[in-house]
Amino acid sequence: MSELFAAVEIITAKREKIELSDQQIDWVVDAYTRGAVADEQMSSLLMAILLNGMSMKEIVRWTDAMINSGERMNWSALDRPTADKHSTGGVGDKITLPLAPLVAACGGAVPQLSGRGLGHTGGTLDKLESIPGWRASLTNAEMLAVLKDCGAVICAAGSGLAPADKKLYALRDVTGTVPAIPLIASSIMSKKIAEGTGALVLDVKTGNGAFMSDPLKARELAQIMVELGERAGVTTRALVTAMDVPLGLTAGNALEVRESLEVLSGGGPADVVELTLILAQEMLEAAGVKSTINPADALKNGAAMDVWRRMIKAQGGDPDANLPTAKENYQVLATESGQITEMNALAVGISAWRLGAGRSKQGESVQAGAGIEIHAKPGQMIQAGQPLFTLHTDEPERFERAIEALADCVHISNSGEKITQLPLILEKITR
Amino acid sequence: MSELFAAVEIITAKREKIELSDQQIDWVVDAYTRGAVADEQMSSLLMAILLNGMSMKEIVRWTDAMINSGERMNWSALDRPTADKHSTGGVGDKITLPLAPLVAACGGAVPQLSGRGLGHTGGTLDKLESIPGWRASLTNAEMLAVLKDCGAVICAAGSGLAPADKKLYALRDVTGTVPAIPLIASSIMSKKIAEGTGALVLDVKTGNGAFMSDPLKARELAQIMVELGERAGVTTRALVTAMDVPLGLTAGNALEVRESLEVLSGGGPADVVELTLILAQEMLEAAGVKSTINPADALKNGAAMDVWRRMIKAQGGDPDANLPTAKENYQVLATESGQITEMNALAVGISAWRLGAGRSKQGESVQAGAGIEIHAKPGQMIQAGQPLFTLHTDEPERFERAIEALADCVHISNSGEKITQLPLILEKITR
Repeated sequence: MSELFAAVEIITAKREKIELSDQQIDWVVDAYTRGAVADEQMSSLLMAILLNGMSMKEIVRWTDAMINSGERMNWSALDRPTADKHSTGGVGDKITLPLAPLVAACGGAVPQLSGRGLGHTGGTLDKLESIPGWRASLTNAEMLAVLKDCGAVICAAGSGLAPADKKLYALRDVTGTVPAIPLIASSIMSKKIAEGTGALVLDVKTGNGAFMSDPLKARELAQIMVELGERAGVTTRALVTAMDVPLGLTAGNALEVRESLEVLSGGGPADVVELTLILAQEMLEAAGVKSTINPADALKNGAAMDVWRRMIKAQGGDPDANLPTAKENYQVLATESGQITEMNALAVGISAWRLGAGRSKQGESVQAGAGIEIHAKPGQMIQAGQPLFTLHTDEPERFERAIEALADCVHISNSGEKITQLPLILEKITR
Repeated sequence: MSELFAAVEIITAKREKIELSDQQIDWVVDAYTRGAVADEQMSSLLMAILLNGMSMKEIVRWTDAMINSGERMNWSALDRPTADKHSTGGVGDKITLPLAPLVAACGGAVPQLSGRGLGHTGGTLDKLESIPGWRASLTNAEMLAVLKDCGAVICAAGSGLAPADKKLYALRDVTGTVPAIPLIASSIMSKKIAEGTGALVLDVKTGNGAFMSDPLKARELAQIMVELGERAGVTTRALVTAMDVPLGLTAGNALEVRESLEVLSGGGPADVVELTLILAQEMLEAAGVKSTINPADALKNGAAMDVWRRMIKAQGGDPDANLPTAKENYQVLATESGQITEMNALAVGISAWRLGAGRSKQGESVQAGAGIEIHAKPGQMIQAGQPLFTLHTDEPERFERAIEALADCVHISNSGEKITQLPLILEKITR
């Protein structure tokens, strides 16, 4: 049978809700990666998967096929257990920045492969690239060296890691096939499993600013990812966490690095500190690190900050350099007095994106200094005329649409209305 | 908004079962035709349409957009009303060959744009191309000249007619998105409406050898196509007809031309003659031709044959030339005695295809002489050892798989089992 035929047969099976065989999945992922299955064939298969779903058996095999499309990293040369964290992304989610050095300071090794942002959610690499000199791309040998030396490394995934996922991710982006749970789960987990971490903590965001705004869908995604990790021998657990309100008080690249430095200095917003500590604890536990160092202490006593500085330097960055600031700023003031009962994370994310902090398609550049500072959050009282947000950008023509995005973002009440906010941690998922 | 974004927005809407607006449909069909929407975007949209459906309003607009992608032909220079027929395709379906000259002989003008075959169903142009010298491609001026001179013309659709459909058809073929009723209906009707016929009779096949094996789906397709035609000002009606048993006693290109010549000579198999006469009557009625000539007479007295000969000559063919025959043949004999109760059209179609009469992908050549002669049909008695089929091909290595395809094709019974066969005409659909 010609390869063209085999692709149509597989698309047809999924379209008719017939479970794909292991052989079919192995073949189609491999053939797509080497170009024998065309983009237009894969995208119709992806839409059929999105609309008709996949069984757990299919998702496991699809993930394996993506892992097998590339290399699998190995950290057995290290003398510490490895642990990594993955967040499904949100507004103001800079947790990786303080978290990786913190876990390293407590005795874990964190081989963190990160990505760039797309749309209203930021990317860890974009944030770190606002540090003068820092570079995201490391060879495997460089990555091992940084990890050995610092206990943590945050860098871009090399092209040899799950190349099938790279191709699929780019395709899904332009074909309306992003929000399919089996595809999201296999995309994330193929990279994390190939990365070779021994333990993994997943931070699955939910609420308006998250990819999975519905908590039930977030739970489903978390459960599938935990299952995929465990089946591949990675100790995996997931937290479903709040993303209805921005995390911390900043959204934007350099702005978030600055906030992360506050956390690493023992300060910073309460929600960012709390989530960082909870995730650190989960990572250390999952990795089986018997630490004598308490994560909260490691933030207070500078141990985590020491790792951070070493790690940034090891990748060419200057931890003492001034971070870039945007050329222009604009204050958004409260128009009424009362208690803030709601702050829409999605609106803040879109506004920051429009200011230049995010990109609309892969490969676009972002502004290091652009973004939003948040001056008050739900639960706090505010007076009309007081600043709610400060917007930053290099291009003042961006302010208008960024302000527009914030139109219904904040609710202020005088009538004792309830504060609408999800708890920071909704749920913990283990196998 | 960038065009890339607009495409993703439209795919997302259809994915989420939101009705597409007129503007969205116009834009996406136009943008795809000119290459601004990529194949991989269109194919994921097509899969979403296949799985989530389209409203009548959407189908009408989609069809209009495909018509508007090219030219619309006009036959107002003719002094006779135009009528055309379209069949959704089946095994042994050579009806167009005797039908077009017959309707012309009875006073209609038949501007028939036809296609080539794909898979187990044959194509009218492939059949006619077995006539030495005959050519399928005509300019619009040539087409008009043949139509004026002969009253009928059968040729290939030019590249200016519904170019959107040509691109979509090729894409659907390789992306598992063929069997979507809205896409089938709009594909057929955009070409037939653009062709400029005043009346149209649709022969929607059902049964195992048809594209729409389920009679309810065939009816749904027929209803939608009749509605599309009528809304575009074309008097349209549809017959749902049997395709569980091959039509006539031949499947293959030159073999079917030979059978058509028998019909035009006043003979031929009863089912082919009956369907030809019924469709001729429908076409003449729909076109409002007040004919003094009875179609059955026009077959008997040679009037239809005269049109055929003029029409074939006008397109470079020699109506007196010997038709090609295959180099090799093989007889399949009955292995038991009794009454034939069943003959699977699909099996015969696949066998003829494997003999070389059909193609597996667009652009492949076909053998003029390859195909199958059928020596007995359901209802007839047969003795073990008598011939059931004669298989023809130029390449004897094709016999094995062609014979395999016929393994369960014929049921012979001694126990008075009922004959399983659909009535020739299941239903007539008008607006």
